[in-house]
Amino acid sequence: MKNFINSDDISDYKKIVEEAIQLKSNPNELKDIGKNKSIGLLFFNPSLRTRISTQKASMILGLKTFVMNFNSEGWQLEFENNTIMSEDKAEHVKDAAKVLSEYCDIIAIRKFADLNNKIDDEKEIVLSSFLKYSTVPILNLESSTFHPLQGLADAITIDETKNKARPKIVLSWAPHPKSLPHAVSNSFIKMAKKNNFELIISNPIGYDLNPEITKGINIIHDQKEAFINADFIYAKNWSSYENYGKVLINDSSWKIDKNKMSLTNNAKFMHCLPVRRNVVVDDDVIDSENSLVISQAENRIYSALIILKKLIENER
Amino acid sequence: MKNFINSDDISDYKKIVEEAIQLKSNPNELKDIGKNKSIGLLFFNPSLRTRISTQKASMILGLKTFVMNFNSEGWQLEFENNTIMSEDKAEHVKDAAKVLSEYCDIIAIRKFADLNNKIDDEKEIVLSSFLKYSTVPILNLESSTFHPLQGLADAITIDETKNKARPKIVLSWAPHPKSLPHAVSNSFIKMAKKNNFELIISNPIGYDLNPEITKGINIIHDQKEAFINADFIYAKNWSSYENYGKVLINDSSWKIDKNKMSLTNNAKFMHCLPVRRNVVVDDDVIDSENSLVISQAENRIYSALIILKKLIENER
Amino acid sequence: MKNFINSDDISDYKKIVEEAIQLKSNPNELKDIGKNKSIGLLFFNPSLRTRISTQKASMILGLKTFVMNFNSEGWQLEFENNTIMSEDKAEHVKDAAKVLSEYCDIIAIRKFADLNNKIDDEKEIVLSSFLKYSTVPILNLESSTFHPLQGLADAITIDETKNKARPKIVLSWAPHPKSLPHAVSNSFIKMAKKNNFELIISNPIGYDLNPEITKGINIIHDQKEAFINADFIYAKNWSSYENYGKVLINDSSWKIDKNKMSLTNNAKFMHCLPVRRNVVVDDDVIDSENSLVISQAENRIYSALIILKKLIENER
Repeated sequence: MKNFINSDDISDYKKIVEEAIQLKSNPNELKDIGKNKSIGLLFFNPSLRTRISTQKASMILGLKTFVMNFNSEGWQLEFENNTIMSEDKAEHVKDAAKVLSEYCDIIAIRKFADLNNKIDDEKEIVLSSFLKYSTVPILNLESSTFHPLQGLADAITIDETKNKARPKIVLSWAPHPKSLPHAVSNSFIKMAKKNNFELIISNPIGYDLNPEITKGINIIHDQKEAFINADFIYAKNWSSYENYGKVLINDSSWKIDKNKMSLTNNAKFMHCLPVRRNVVVDDDVIDSENSLVISQAENRIYSALIILKKLIENER
Repeated sequence: MKNFINSDDISDYKKIVEEAIQLKSNPNELKDIGKNKSIGLLFFNPSLRTRISTQKASMILGLKTFVMNFNSEGWQLEFENNTIMSEDKAEHVKDAAKVLSEYCDIIAIRKFADLNNKIDDEKEIVLSSFLKYSTVPILNLESSTFHPLQGLADAITIDETKNKARPKIVLSWAPHPKSLPHAVSNSFIKMAKKNNFELIISNPIGYDLNPEITKGINIIHDQKEAFINADFIYAKNWSSYENYGKVLINDSSWKIDKNKMSLTNNAKFMHCLPVRRNVVVDDDVIDSENSLVISQAENRIYSALIILKKLIENER
Repeated sequence: MKNFINSDDISDYKKIVEEAIQLKSNPNELKDIGKNKSIGLLFFNPSLRTRISTQKASMILGLKTFVMNFNSEGWQLEFENNTIMSEDKAEHVKDAAKVLSEYCDIIAIRKFADLNNKIDDEKEIVLSSFLKYSTVPILNLESSTFHPLQGLADAITIDETKNKARPKIVLSWAPHPKSLPHAVSNSFIKMAKKNNFELIISNPIGYDLNPEITKGINIIHDQKEAFINADFIYAKNWSSYENYGKVLINDSSWKIDKNKMSLTNNAKFMHCLPVRRNVVVDDDVIDSENSLVISQAENRIYSALIILKKLIENER
């Protein structure tokens, strides 16, 4: 694997899920894979799961691990080309990426969507600039439009839990007080397609995701209808894609509760965390024995582990 | 040892002090104890000694060590149950603690008292929430009411220095411009009780500490009287417990100086650091050969080392 | 080597450059040199190259590596002696330095000039206080007046590239919107003297550097004249030394461009980074095949590696 930007960088998704599950039984056997190699984890945004799980996976592999909060610890980066850099930005990403490539064998980057301008966010200026100028593999720790390590952890979790070959999975929009990015949802959809799951997206009118990504997926605007016979409910808020970054609905009608869950086929409940309890989902759903949220978080270690292994070995 | 919240988690205090002193001669022999294990060090407050000494002890044991400044690097945590999380807090501690338990074999937490509300501080909401929801041992790196690794480092330092079985120790209040927590003093008192030292507390009227903790200890409101024949003077400021968090006295009459030290039995001077020089204590006292402050700081490595060892081995 | 404060701590500069170049072929052979030892990297200012390259070198040597952003993670330090510490500063550097000496076998410090007061900056209060109170070697990661690891990396880069024994090197002032310190330039000059290179400094009138440092060096106020037949152009902005910290010139007349480079002997272009592109230097110069900026950054690993090795081995 040359880089891991989104799920398309995985050629055989099912195989990688299997390999990740195999790693779980003895991850520490991998301790020499990263020997004499280094990774830089660059954070432009807050992080709990990604920060710790990727550090852990890196250290398990024996990688020298450098964590950097880029905004506060480094220099403000310029991303535009041919600019006369006479304003606040002290370093061009071209130089930063090339320099970091001398220090790190893998550069991992977390930079969320700003949600101000769809075109800008879809340009993925931070990630794509590092991709352009780095001479080492780039690992996406959540970008404007994708969060593929989350998608892979979700796939591992579903694979470990499903009791039929082709489960019915509902990706359901849920309410949230703030404007949130589309990265997790996009990566979940791509992952479900790669695994040939029966995926239904359920969201209010005005909240349809990027049609290029949802192409071929059934979108149902009636949440209860969507939930019928579902094997997995994946809850996630996202801001409007059409009215980019806007919060259109503020009431609790789309919150995931016990009544809605009772419409399903005793479905498992999934969420990537962090989650606003009793806004996105009721306590008695997320705390039920059908909740997989902690397993999803745990599997972030193994999704990072298998991808880092592939990046180091540079195989598809 | 299941958790290390305060000195009561140590069943045989003298034995643990002895073991810590034994470790000092060759700490690096312990390098395999933490093999394939991880620790998360979560800081909600500034730290120098705790930050570096606990990192060092963790690394000596071979633990993968993750340091996180929770406020700036993670998500703002909700601690109340059953809340509708529609405000600023993005993640419930229940989820954060469970997730971190998947990544870490020990979770260490530093969160000071806010000193606004006694009842809230004594609830130890941060530490007790992690204790409640984590599935791994919790290590207290200073909470609202206790700083037991400091207490243990102080015990090691006294044990290495005392020239009689039962030294007379004075815990003396000293002035400070800001409102400070009670954690260090509380842990020192608990430690002194466990070691059966002759402890006297000396503080101005209005500054008596929590009577549940000081029960059975002689409190003398005349500092000079207290100092007579003392073998150790432990200086520490704390804000009023009765007028919770308030600074009642602002003058230098309680500052530790040479004259007061001359009343003692050539006493050793102790302070946990950081210290306001010439406010809490005069330079010529803290810089004298009787000062133990650097030894106390050094012993933070070994107090962390023995406790981490016990937590990993899960023995009392 | 007892400390590494500036280039004068290197007795045989050419030998150390040779040794550093030898290390590059197999740095990982050094992995046991720092065994059971620790380093503290204290940052009072932002950093990319220094932060990651010094971490990397430390880890290559097997040192336990503690990175601390002192301003945000620790206590505000007092540097004056005999002060009554009743204001904002919570800890005296005397105590912090002694404590850190218990935890670390090397203390590395980055603290820039404030550029408000020449006398204060030249006192190097942060670095010299740690030097005074620490009991372990001090490593300068850029202080008010020197950046010797950059100077050494520059020497390594020149040595690897020069095609004559005594190249002509021009240290050229270049424009910048902000007021910048003199540390990099000072260390470059010291390094060039130690290596007996033919050094010319070129800067506008009013921008002459500290005459004690430039003594014996030809200063030419006509940039084009200086560039004639140069083998290396080292571009760097600095604020006025005479009108201390002031920016006197704001136009682009001193920017390094292709036309000026054409006056040279096909000179290599050097800069320590970060660089304001198209303010300090045009894209087509820094992006040309004659640019050495990425090699300079890469060599920061090896300058740190050789100096850390010398500090650990305590040899000159």
